[in-house]
Amino acid sequence: MTKINGEERNGVTVLRKSIEYIPRPSLRTWLIGRPLSTADAPHQTIGKLVGLAVFASDALSSTAYATQEILAILAVAGTAAFGYAFPISVAIALLLIIVAISYEQTIHAYPDGGGAYIVARDNLGELPAQIATSALLTDYVLTVAVSISSGVDQLASAFPTLLPYRVYMAVGLVFFTMIVNLRGVRESGLAFAIPSYFFVAMMFLTVGLGLLKYVTGNLEMLADPPPIEVLGPLVAVTPFLILHAFSSGTAALTGIEAISNGITAFKEPRSRNAGITLIWMAGILTVLFLGITFLVHPIGAVPSREETVISQLARAVVEGRGPLCLAAMAGTTVILVMAANTSFAGFPRLSALAAKDGYLPRQLTYRGSRLVYSRGIAALAVFASILVIGFQANVSRLIPLYAIGVFMSFTLSQLGMARRWWKSGHLAPGEEIKERGSVLAYDRGWQVKMIINGVGAIATAIVMVVFAVTKFKDGAYIVLIVIPILVIIFLGIHRHYMSLAHSLSLENYGATPRLARHRVIIPISGVHRGSLAALQYAHTLSDDITAVHVSTDPDEAERVSRKWETWGDGIRLVILDSPFRLFLEPLLQYIEEISDNSQPNEVITIVVPQFVPKHWYHNLLHTQTAILLRLALLFKPGIIVTDVPYQVD
Amino acid sequence: MTKINGEERNGVTVLRKSIEYIPRPSLRTWLIGRPLSTADAPHQTIGKLVGLAVFASDALSSTAYATQEILAILAVAGTAAFGYAFPISVAIALLLIIVAISYEQTIHAYPDGGGAYIVARDNLGELPAQIATSALLTDYVLTVAVSISSGVDQLASAFPTLLPYRVYMAVGLVFFTMIVNLRGVRESGLAFAIPSYFFVAMMFLTVGLGLLKYVTGNLEMLADPPPIEVLGPLVAVTPFLILHAFSSGTAALTGIEAISNGITAFKEPRSRNAGITLIWMAGILTVLFLGITFLVHPIGAVPSREETVISQLARAVVEGRGPLCLAAMAGTTVILVMAANTSFAGFPRLSALAAKDGYLPRQLTYRGSRLVYSRGIAALAVFASILVIGFQANVSRLIPLYAIGVFMSFTLSQLGMARRWWKSGHLAPGEEIKERGSVLAYDRGWQVKMIINGVGAIATAIVMVVFAVTKFKDGAYIVLIVIPILVIIFLGIHRHYMSLAHSLSLENYGATPRLARHRVIIPISGVHRGSLAALQYAHTLSDDITAVHVSTDPDEAERVSRKWETWGDGIRLVILDSPFRLFLEPLLQYIEEISDNSQPNEVITIVVPQFVPKHWYHNLLHTQTAILLRLALLFKPGIIVTDVPYQVD
Repeated sequence: MTKINGEERNGVTVLRKSIEYIPRPSLRTWLIGRPLSTADAPHQTIGKLVGLAVFASDALSSTAYATQEILAILAVAGTAAFGYAFPISVAIALLLIIVAISYEQTIHAYPDGGGAYIVARDNLGELPAQIATSALLTDYVLTVAVSISSGVDQLASAFPTLLPYRVYMAVGLVFFTMIVNLRGVRESGLAFAIPSYFFVAMMFLTVGLGLLKYVTGNLEMLADPPPIEVLGPLVAVTPFLILHAFSSGTAALTGIEAISNGITAFKEPRSRNAGITLIWMAGILTVLFLGITFLVHPIGAVPSREETVISQLARAVVEGRGPLCLAAMAGTTVILVMAANTSFAGFPRLSALAAKDGYLPRQLTYRGSRLVYSRGIAALAVFASILVIGFQANVSRLIPLYAIGVFMSFTLSQLGMARRWWKSGHLAPGEEIKERGSVLAYDRGWQVKMIINGVGAIATAIVMVVFAVTKFKDGAYIVLIVIPILVIIFLGIHRHYMSLAHSLSLENYGATPRLARHRVIIPISGVHRGSLAALQYAHTLSDDITAVHVSTDPDEAERVSRKWETWGDGIRLVILDSPFRLFLEPLLQYIEEISDNSQPNEVITIVVPQFVPKHWYHNLLHTQTAILLRLALLFKPGIIVTDVPYQVD
Repeated sequence: MTKINGEERNGVTVLRKSIEYIPRPSLRTWLIGRPLSTADAPHQTIGKLVGLAVFASDALSSTAYATQEILAILAVAGTAAFGYAFPISVAIALLLIIVAISYEQTIHAYPDGGGAYIVARDNLGELPAQIATSALLTDYVLTVAVSISSGVDQLASAFPTLLPYRVYMAVGLVFFTMIVNLRGVRESGLAFAIPSYFFVAMMFLTVGLGLLKYVTGNLEMLADPPPIEVLGPLVAVTPFLILHAFSSGTAALTGIEAISNGITAFKEPRSRNAGITLIWMAGILTVLFLGITFLVHPIGAVPSREETVISQLARAVVEGRGPLCLAAMAGTTVILVMAANTSFAGFPRLSALAAKDGYLPRQLTYRGSRLVYSRGIAALAVFASILVIGFQANVSRLIPLYAIGVFMSFTLSQLGMARRWWKSGHLAPGEEIKERGSVLAYDRGWQVKMIINGVGAIATAIVMVVFAVTKFKDGAYIVLIVIPILVIIFLGIHRHYMSLAHSLSLENYGATPRLARHRVIIPISGVHRGSLAALQYAHTLSDDITAVHVSTDPDEAERVSRKWETWGDGIRLVILDSPFRLFLEPLLQYIEEISDNSQPNEVITIVVPQFVPKHWYHNLLHTQTAILLRLALLFKPGIIVTDVPYQVD
């Protein structure tokens, strides 16, 4: 059913039609659900509880390994150095709080979402913004690859028969997560909320029981700790070692930026909801991280490849591998898959944002049938799968690539926020400046806020550098090569869109002159119904028509000109002798001669008869002249190529 | 420089232009030489001496292994059975003479060339002709694969370091032979004549010296024969064993049909020259084959994987591995590569012939820049390379596929000739019937000739059946599957061309009515120089123009209609609301609605503005609407899609 609304505006009739669309059931609708109308969009936002499950799993899942990473570095200085773990975790918790406050401030300053990219763009300029984009996009891909691979590892440790199929399982899980996300954010929120909260509950139970036992003096040392793993010869505790352990532990911070990129996914008032969710997340993360790190010392947990620290803790608290221990492990496995899901929310949003600004292909701003940026989701799945296959789902080979991007974006975001406070401090009270993504106003506490962000920027920059230096050879160099390449590509894309907009701009564009003359050329290989259909169409275009036959065989040329005398409506026929049996080249040369001699206000249309056989593979039996001709004449102004399809059968 | 000849015929102006073509030097001209004009064609024929080198190497190279194949079968009945080898070879020589006479008769009956395909087509009908085509084409591909692989084997036996690179070398040689053939037949004749005659000379020297020693009583038994190879447990000599040995030995006949397919390559009088060349070839082949087989018994040669029979013979004649022995081996290697070259002459000719009759893609009739059927040459190289790679250049795995096709085509050809004599016998003396490829007249000796051909047909049919049965499991079944599939494809291609010709035929076709109405639709995504260029072009087509904007964003639609008021020349604008954010579907639905309501004598042109960016890869940054639209509307009569390219920069 078609509804029509007519309107006459400034002498131009503007008709508005709404064409009802009845989606056909298909594999696609079965997989991702029936198409949603744009009008359905506002309902597809999420509340704080679902938002926490959707955006926080990446950050929360890092509690599963952050403490262990600290211990693994400290082990080089002997088990006595494990005493430094808790003070280091307190420092990390402080950093976490600074970053969280910074992002909470960002969420309120940028209610339309953005995170590092928008903050860098609005406060630092194009290059830092594109560095942030590249760093974040790279990291999203790595999050999916690392988290899914690690999740599959946990599964394979539990069921060793699955071990040979790890890569297949990982790729399968990537595409499963992709489909869940193509269905839309609310559905994926519901699907993922239960396991997310299960993990959080298990962790709180473990840590809470442990602290209770510690306070009541019932927490005992592990009777059978796994064999400790030391990465090198024993060394003394140095400031560098402490910094190294600190930087390894900051893996706990990865994923904290997810909410600030996804503010628009939240229910209104979205800034407030997103901000509260961020604070919840930071709170849960801090408590769990500090709790776990505090407890490992009294129970004598050690870093080991045979048993994770979480497992040792669960075992110590409930005394043995009971159901609680298994449940904690299951929760850990699932939260890692959830972490991948966080990227499936972040990557498409960020790429759509950058695409809207013209730094990525515009197609990424297209919202698919379920109102999600389906092309970004699909792109993430493809890149992550390439990474998973390339690194054979091996987490330890992927880890050194991970986290540099996160800290690079943290640094840029906080640097941008610091710059913003500095700018706001130099406004008059009450003065407001409208920026693209936000409104800038004078803020009384600007010095304190600037210092918080500045300290955060310096701290995250140091972490990034330490990370890059210590893990350079293990793979960090790959990221340090990829990010600049991506930046160059993004800037190139932007240059193209800018130059295109400039070429197409109607500024200083005079009135379009009418074309004075229209010449038509019909290349014919023979005289048949197809070429007569083309001739019939040519008559509607112009009275200046020339048929051209490229001749490689004099007998054939004679036959064509005889038939043309009967059927050609008296239209002039030119026979081009092609002594080298070429078809396209003489025709092009002829067309170019005519075009070179034409007046400026003239257009030439090449009308090409084209058979359309019933089956596509029959095209293999015909030379595709029209396609070749179009490609050859694409760059020639004033020449238009038109196929006149002739349906055979 | 353009020369023009005008002419007025029946009120139609027919212009004849000849456009001079200056070929640019390129990798292509460097590889295959400067393009040749069609006028150069007659000079590119060859004489008898070169013709022998070009067409006979396939047949002659079989002397390198035919005798050994006979001995290998007889060895199952003990070395005493080797005495049967010479009588068997006499029988094969008789068969060879029958086949040669048959083909000599064919060459004179069909002076425009043809061989099995044309003889079967003109005398037996479509199906036998297509079976012959499939069999021959399959066999040409196999000849290349087998000969090149065998040649590489000889090389690798001499230089074992080359062994791991056999497949690469074989593919390299296939493409080398391809390039030589793309240069044109005369050049390839010259390039190949010297080694061909070297092989013949070496063989005559070996056999001649051997016979001389035998007559003078100086030929001695080999002092150190290589270890004999027996393929199974000892059995008695049975008629089946003799037949089996006979059929293995008939490998000597492969390639004998090459000349009859390539008559047109010869200098005039071509039938005579081709016939004489065939007789020379058959003579050389018979003498060498009989001579070699006669000599193996007195010297006590045995079939062996460690040393070929030819090598044993050379060693016995010159007493030791001297220069003659090495020269004979080198000649053998080279003749095998020459044998592949024979197929490069035969395959393109046959496929062009079948393509001209509409059983293969018409493109195969196209003669390339060097006046050879370059597409057939390239196709042969590709198929042979696939076979070489698929079978890892392993001759013993390829051999069972080989020869069935040859004998199938021999049988069909001789059956066709027998039928032809029978027909000629039923004409009145002096009466003549014109057939497509020949003139049929009464022949006094028709009974004898028919009996010769009939006996040949029966003999080659038996050989084919014995071959197929004894080697079925080893790979012959592949050919017996491939040939019927090819026949079905060829008949399908023919059906397509016939139905196309029928659809395009102007028989019973009335005068073309003028189209009464021309509607133009311009889909616009925005108002810019590109869409205005399309509008400017649309004005030359019709006054009935509608611009259509598919709207997924109301703000954007508002902007477009405002701009259109200024720039749209008062042309009606339709805004199609697309609630599901689809672009193509609402547009197609709109076009179809208009098309369904249109009158029969009406045409609709969709004028699509299309950017042409400077670099092709920039197209990745744009949705290719025009291409999708054209594909979607290809099957809809009365709708034409025209892109108006707008060159950016």
